[in-house]
Amino acid sequence: MTPASGIVSLTTDFGLDDPYVGLMKARILGRHPGARIIDLTHGITPHRPVEAGFWLERSRQHFPPGSVHVAVVDPGVGTGRGLLAVALDGQVFLAPDNGLLATLADSPGAEVRVVTEAVLARLGLLALSATFHGRDIFAPLAGEIASTRLPFEELGPVSGNWVTGGMPKTRTEHGRCQGEVILIDRFGNLFSNIEESSLKVDEVKSVTFGPHVLPLVRTYGEASIGAPVALVNAFGVIEAAVVEGRAADALGLGIGALVWTESTRKA
Amino acid sequence: MTPASGIVSLTTDFGLDDPYVGLMKARILGRHPGARIIDLTHGITPHRPVEAGFWLERSRQHFPPGSVHVAVVDPGVGTGRGLLAVALDGQVFLAPDNGLLATLADSPGAEVRVVTEAVLARLGLLALSATFHGRDIFAPLAGEIASTRLPFEELGPVSGNWVTGGMPKTRTEHGRCQGEVILIDRFGNLFSNIEESSLKVDEVKSVTFGPHVLPLVRTYGEASIGAPVALVNAFGVIEAAVVEGRAADALGLGIGALVWTESTRKA
Amino acid sequence: MTPASGIVSLTTDFGLDDPYVGLMKARILGRHPGARIIDLTHGITPHRPVEAGFWLERSRQHFPPGSVHVAVVDPGVGTGRGLLAVALDGQVFLAPDNGLLATLADSPGAEVRVVTEAVLARLGLLALSATFHGRDIFAPLAGEIASTRLPFEELGPVSGNWVTGGMPKTRTEHGRCQGEVILIDRFGNLFSNIEESSLKVDEVKSVTFGPHVLPLVRTYGEASIGAPVALVNAFGVIEAAVVEGRAADALGLGIGALVWTESTRKA
Repeated sequence: MTPASGIVSLTTDFGLDDPYVGLMKARILGRHPGARIIDLTHGITPHRPVEAGFWLERSRQHFPPGSVHVAVVDPGVGTGRGLLAVALDGQVFLAPDNGLLATLADSPGAEVRVVTEAVLARLGLLALSATFHGRDIFAPLAGEIASTRLPFEELGPVSGNWVTGGMPKTRTEHGRCQGEVILIDRFGNLFSNIEESSLKVDEVKSVTFGPHVLPLVRTYGEASIGAPVALVNAFGVIEAAVVEGRAADALGLGIGALVWTESTRKA
Repeated sequence: MTPASGIVSLTTDFGLDDPYVGLMKARILGRHPGARIIDLTHGITPHRPVEAGFWLERSRQHFPPGSVHVAVVDPGVGTGRGLLAVALDGQVFLAPDNGLLATLADSPGAEVRVVTEAVLARLGLLALSATFHGRDIFAPLAGEIASTRLPFEELGPVSGNWVTGGMPKTRTEHGRCQGEVILIDRFGNLFSNIEESSLKVDEVKSVTFGPHVLPLVRTYGEASIGAPVALVNAFGVIEAAVVEGRAADALGLGIGALVWTESTRKA
Repeated sequence: MTPASGIVSLTTDFGLDDPYVGLMKARILGRHPGARIIDLTHGITPHRPVEAGFWLERSRQHFPPGSVHVAVVDPGVGTGRGLLAVALDGQVFLAPDNGLLATLADSPGAEVRVVTEAVLARLGLLALSATFHGRDIFAPLAGEIASTRLPFEELGPVSGNWVTGGMPKTRTEHGRCQGEVILIDRFGNLFSNIEESSLKVDEVKSVTFGPHVLPLVRTYGEASIGAPVALVNAFGVIEAAVVEGRAADALGLGIGALVWTESTRKA
């Protein structure tokens, strides 16, 4: 296992208006004063684990080895749902077992463990509350892992069985790849679930978002202001954007809208 | 006095859209490069010190000893209002003397001091502006305290006289405890001011928010999706919640709405 | 050149709902694990570099020497626009060459350099994406500078030619100084571009925002609750405020509204 980098990233649906995130940080630093905490995002749509899973999976390559990632989108808090830990490419991911980590857990080379009650008890992490495990369990546990006092292998038994994720699948046939809008970002860009790696981008003839056929460009600067375009974005998926505008508004589309690409080859 | 942990927490009504919080951090690190700064919350309703005081009082147990907490909700900035420092259980709290720290100052074991002009002058903290003492006074003062260069005892004389807080009181008689809604969080949960410690929760027969009688559950997972419930939340007060929904919207209630519990014992 | 303080400040129009800022931090810490990162603001109006430039210029005096400031408001990302670095008073500023840094670059003592492709290539910063240079270029570059491995002088050739800024100019004649509203903050305060340093404040007879003549006060506490006033704010410009209210709403004004001061002397 890679030595810890001291970095702990946080991904939640807590927003930043309440002290929920601040309290997680207090608990992390209480366990590991040297932790360097990065807010990945707290803007996940409430109770939508799949969104958190998408961002983590698309962000991890930019973190140093040894980073520990905590994701708490947890509608089932206080019920019997398990606590999952995934080790992948020298980084560790912690989250409720509700599908959030499914894509990572399914990745080649991933090792998945279920954190046991015995480990939590030994660390004094009997839940103080039935509703805020982010503060009472996940944060201090991440601090212990980041400090290197608690090796990944000691978290609990290896598991081959976890809750599957809710990310919609794409379908490819006859040169057409069909997916849907899965996210809208701050700029009104529409993210689809169609990955660059599943296409031959050079052979894409057209990209369609809902009823709109869009030209495929390489970067925003190639289109004129106000013009809707499609491009492979910085997270490796097809997105619709309006240069210096908001595609979600201009195209009148939201999460779940159909997206497809047509290829010049009917391979 | 407990040695400083290097942790400085910030609680303000500044929001995060403007650089106000960032400038406080620059001034803290300017005085104490080793400070580890935690944003507790910057989402306090503008000009509502009582909300900041509630969160601080309910959050402090989760911070390591030696933490320094700065709270700036300061409608009276630039007037003659004083600057209060409270030491309690090995942590230090700084805020304008406008009721924000009243609950902490009233706590058993609290030591309250009024920061003097002489101390500020010695530290070079003559206010650069008449409107932004968070940046010009509170932040560098917190940095000095967190660095341990400035002991709490040297901040100014002990005081027994501070502005009282605006937290509404609860009333208990004949087994009925009456309070009100004091906060709405990001999830639309309605926080009341009725504390678990003032009730025998096992004997609570019903909880009423405005016109709605709600079942008392232990955690969100015990109710069905969309069902409004009451519970003791992670901050030790009675709250109304809707599972995977927003209680504030579902119940049509806001800050100030009446809340009461009925007990099986008319003690 | 001043030794680095380890402080890296971030100013963007990315908001905090998406992981864009978190990814910049991951890349900074990947290059310089000891960096102490301060979010100056991520609430810049999308695609409005002039706003970022204003805040940077008005904030820099509060940062320790050796701070590195990264500002990414970058509608031209992926086009041929250059990457500018400015050294001023012992601090370094990095941004796209789109006018954002124009005021700083024009300041006496500023040294302006254009970052070369050769430097980026040597650092392995070939853009991973055509749309997110904040993560792929600016952040790791700032980490290198903050680590002191990369001296400012080696970033590229000195330049005397940069894109001018979009900050509107003020006009002064016959004792009247005319400007406009350039910003609205979280509290609804209206910032003008009229600087204290361009006025003799003692001689200002009246301040007018749009159709409203406002009394000039020193601080919020001098006016009654709900009363609109003008004052020199904590950033050295004339602002309109409503005590415990929102001037933007009360006066019905927005960005671009006319502002002028009349002086008792027609100098």
